[in-house]
Amino acid sequence: MSTVPGTTPEELESVLAAATRAAGPLGTLRPAERAGLLRAAADALDAAADELVPLAIEESSLPEGRLRGEVARSSGQLRLFAEVLEEGSFLEVILDSADAGAKPVPRPDLRRMLVPLGPVLVFAASNFPFAFSVPGGDTASALAAGSPVVIKAHPGHPKLSQRTGEVLVEALRAAGAPEGTFAVIHGMDVGTTALTDPRVKAAAFTGSVKGGRALLDIATTRAEPIPFYGELGSLNPVFVTPAAVAARGDGIADGYVGSFTLGTGQFCTKPGLLFLPEGHGLEERIAAAVRGTAPAGMLNDRIREGHAHERDRLEGLGPVRTLVHGADSDAGVAPTLLATTAKELLADPDALLQECFGPTSIIVEYAGQDEVLAAAEAFGGNLTATIHAEDGDAATLPPLLDVLRERTGRLVYNGWPTGVAVAWAMHHGGPHPATTASVHTSVGATAVRRFLRPVCYQDTPQALLPEALQDGNPLGLPRRIDGVLTPA
Amino acid sequence: MSTVPGTTPEELESVLAAATRAAGPLGTLRPAERAGLLRAAADALDAAADELVPLAIEESSLPEGRLRGEVARSSGQLRLFAEVLEEGSFLEVILDSADAGAKPVPRPDLRRMLVPLGPVLVFAASNFPFAFSVPGGDTASALAAGSPVVIKAHPGHPKLSQRTGEVLVEALRAAGAPEGTFAVIHGMDVGTTALTDPRVKAAAFTGSVKGGRALLDIATTRAEPIPFYGELGSLNPVFVTPAAVAARGDGIADGYVGSFTLGTGQFCTKPGLLFLPEGHGLEERIAAAVRGTAPAGMLNDRIREGHAHERDRLEGLGPVRTLVHGADSDAGVAPTLLATTAKELLADPDALLQECFGPTSIIVEYAGQDEVLAAAEAFGGNLTATIHAEDGDAATLPPLLDVLRERTGRLVYNGWPTGVAVAWAMHHGGPHPATTASVHTSVGATAVRRFLRPVCYQDTPQALLPEALQDGNPLGLPRRIDGVLTPA
Repeated sequence: MSTVPGTTPEELESVLAAATRAAGPLGTLRPAERAGLLRAAADALDAAADELVPLAIEESSLPEGRLRGEVARSSGQLRLFAEVLEEGSFLEVILDSADAGAKPVPRPDLRRMLVPLGPVLVFAASNFPFAFSVPGGDTASALAAGSPVVIKAHPGHPKLSQRTGEVLVEALRAAGAPEGTFAVIHGMDVGTTALTDPRVKAAAFTGSVKGGRALLDIATTRAEPIPFYGELGSLNPVFVTPAAVAARGDGIADGYVGSFTLGTGQFCTKPGLLFLPEGHGLEERIAAAVRGTAPAGMLNDRIREGHAHERDRLEGLGPVRTLVHGADSDAGVAPTLLATTAKELLADPDALLQECFGPTSIIVEYAGQDEVLAAAEAFGGNLTATIHAEDGDAATLPPLLDVLRERTGRLVYNGWPTGVAVAWAMHHGGPHPATTASVHTSVGATAVRRFLRPVCYQDTPQALLPEALQDGNPLGLPRRIDGVLTPA
Repeated sequence: MSTVPGTTPEELESVLAAATRAAGPLGTLRPAERAGLLRAAADALDAAADELVPLAIEESSLPEGRLRGEVARSSGQLRLFAEVLEEGSFLEVILDSADAGAKPVPRPDLRRMLVPLGPVLVFAASNFPFAFSVPGGDTASALAAGSPVVIKAHPGHPKLSQRTGEVLVEALRAAGAPEGTFAVIHGMDVGTTALTDPRVKAAAFTGSVKGGRALLDIATTRAEPIPFYGELGSLNPVFVTPAAVAARGDGIADGYVGSFTLGTGQFCTKPGLLFLPEGHGLEERIAAAVRGTAPAGMLNDRIREGHAHERDRLEGLGPVRTLVHGADSDAGVAPTLLATTAKELLADPDALLQECFGPTSIIVEYAGQDEVLAAAEAFGGNLTATIHAEDGDAATLPPLLDVLRERTGRLVYNGWPTGVAVAWAMHHGGPHPATTASVHTSVGATAVRRFLRPVCYQDTPQALLPEALQDGNPLGLPRRIDGVLTPA
């Protein structure tokens, strides 16, 4: 499918060697200097939008408005990490004074900070040609950490990936980044070869459960196992209380259809199941909204076929009713609306709780709070879970929130899970199978933590300490000193 | 070898079920309430020292003074985590206000914090019957995180483990901890069964490279892979400059012997290699100090045999000279001192750079700074690396520090790596094979981070938010608000 030649073994060798050479110089730049690199990359990406967006349209079938928004999101993300670098808390500096009288043993002078892991391999996603691809969050956070990035382009948008890579490499070079700081490679075999290379010190991935699992196994069974940050699959259930249906059922119906058909359903946060109380009376309105949603192209043939296969499997299940069957045609893929009950779901959760990546979603009718709780408990890890409720529900919601929190990264209230804000507080992650590493996030300021490890200097003279750890705080960092958090 | 019966499958089921039931109540206690549990455990441990230390002596062959120090270290560690809980930064609360005008899309109200992973399985170490065993750092940090702990006792000290477990269970119960917060299990098969159980959400381990690797593979290839925090092996090289030899060679010689024979060499931070400049003239003094060190018992027969095997292998290598051969006798194991050169080490690093757990260490003579750097580059991941130098060396040390930092968790200057202070800034970790997760630490205040994952609440009403995230900051936590770090 690719129109860009695969990376040769010789080229891969050259890329990995250069990334390894770049790791030291890039990692020891001052945070504010790396912030400059990220801003230069952001500016270059924005400046190249008129050239890159048409390539993205051609290769992804996504509309121009969405893609321009994604460019802005990606450059904004690079700029957020520049702020994170300038703020400095990400280094997690902790200083403990020597204490000769400490019990049971004297304490030396200890100074801890985080340092980059080294070259990071990123596997780009299909569904965000910018924001989870070459200039995306994994790239931005790894560069912020000070780790060179080798990005394995997604075969769905090879020309865009290649050209975006050139734009970023040129911008980084012009801004003074070490040669080898960033590179794009092509080809699945090349990606797995890189993943086994001892010079690669961490990997990040956004894609399917199956693909992510295969790469996780490679990353963790290498001679030197490395962290593998995979964002895999998510069902993103939405739970609606009777009071919410009564207060604003029509709005919920419309919001649901808008969210699950957005981007032709090709979001990892697409709501896959909508739990409604028996007698909700919204079926017709939801079905009409689905019928009224125009078909649209999917990212590529493989994803279209995968969606059709899973949609048809769900439609073929005994307990599932088809409310709207969306056909695949030359005009694209029309959305599909299915229905079942919580009782049926609980009778065979494995059959129904499978991600269908694309514009298909299921309405699930429940008979009462006990069924809602039991259904929520049937879910595995998810990126998001959503509740629609009213003030009067406050007393009954905590048990549901507890169950959902245990298996979810982000809890949305009276909103929709699609749309992941790039912000300090965002968490985009969750227990497996949402991710392979629930302890970390792939979006938001704290994503940088994935590519850093602690180092502690003991009794080291000032002249040999990194600036971040020196007396007098020359970098103006927030630091914890003898247990006390001390802003810059 | 064990004198305590293995945990039966029925008992394990009961332990895991109780831990799972305890996870919710323990995790939602206020941090200050969990601090109270940790302090109660610390007090009970101290109070039981007179009963526990004799058991530890009987099962470990370690001397009373060392073991009493270890009890104090362990209770001190529980109290440090109580402070960490009361300080509150460990929750990493981040609040972003809603911003309807944010570009490219409006930003909702986002409130992020860390929540416990759920039940944690800890594999206790042999060499610290308290501090890396039942009441050790993994236990303390997991309980601090709010995760129930199931600890697999080390077969080297089963009676001590059983009794210490009873003391802690009773103390936690009396202080109001949920039933199931803590349990001790016995038996390797029982441990691996628990590791594959879906109710276990993370595991920690301190032990050998081989054992840790086998458990890592189990933890990461489960249907739901879980974090596995293993601390495995370390060589802990020490590099001495010519100026340091000239200024205080005798002190270095004595300090080295003291450090590598401490606790009969049974520390993960034992210095395994001492790099000295050619013509250092310290060989006789070091050898004399080694000869003057009394033999001492090792932890158990398996460890004694493992040491003898690896020591004999090293002695049998062509490029290795035996300066002092320490015999195994009824009195215990006497220390062994070997010697080689950096040139020989570089000719066959794999043969020489193997951990020999016990009182054996190697002097390595180097011919100049280039050889030191090349030798440093031959090392894999280590918990520590040490430099002995003088002020005049400052200009030549940065390249060596750079090489060492890339493969080391803690850099010690003019000291010795044995003795790991329990403090806010301590880092006890490092790249593989020192650990299986270099991004985290097993000692120090930040060890709690291993057992926590982020959750983000979006647009959630105050009444449904955890206290940590509510307006008005009812728990008095340090929080980041709209990007600004705000102390309590």
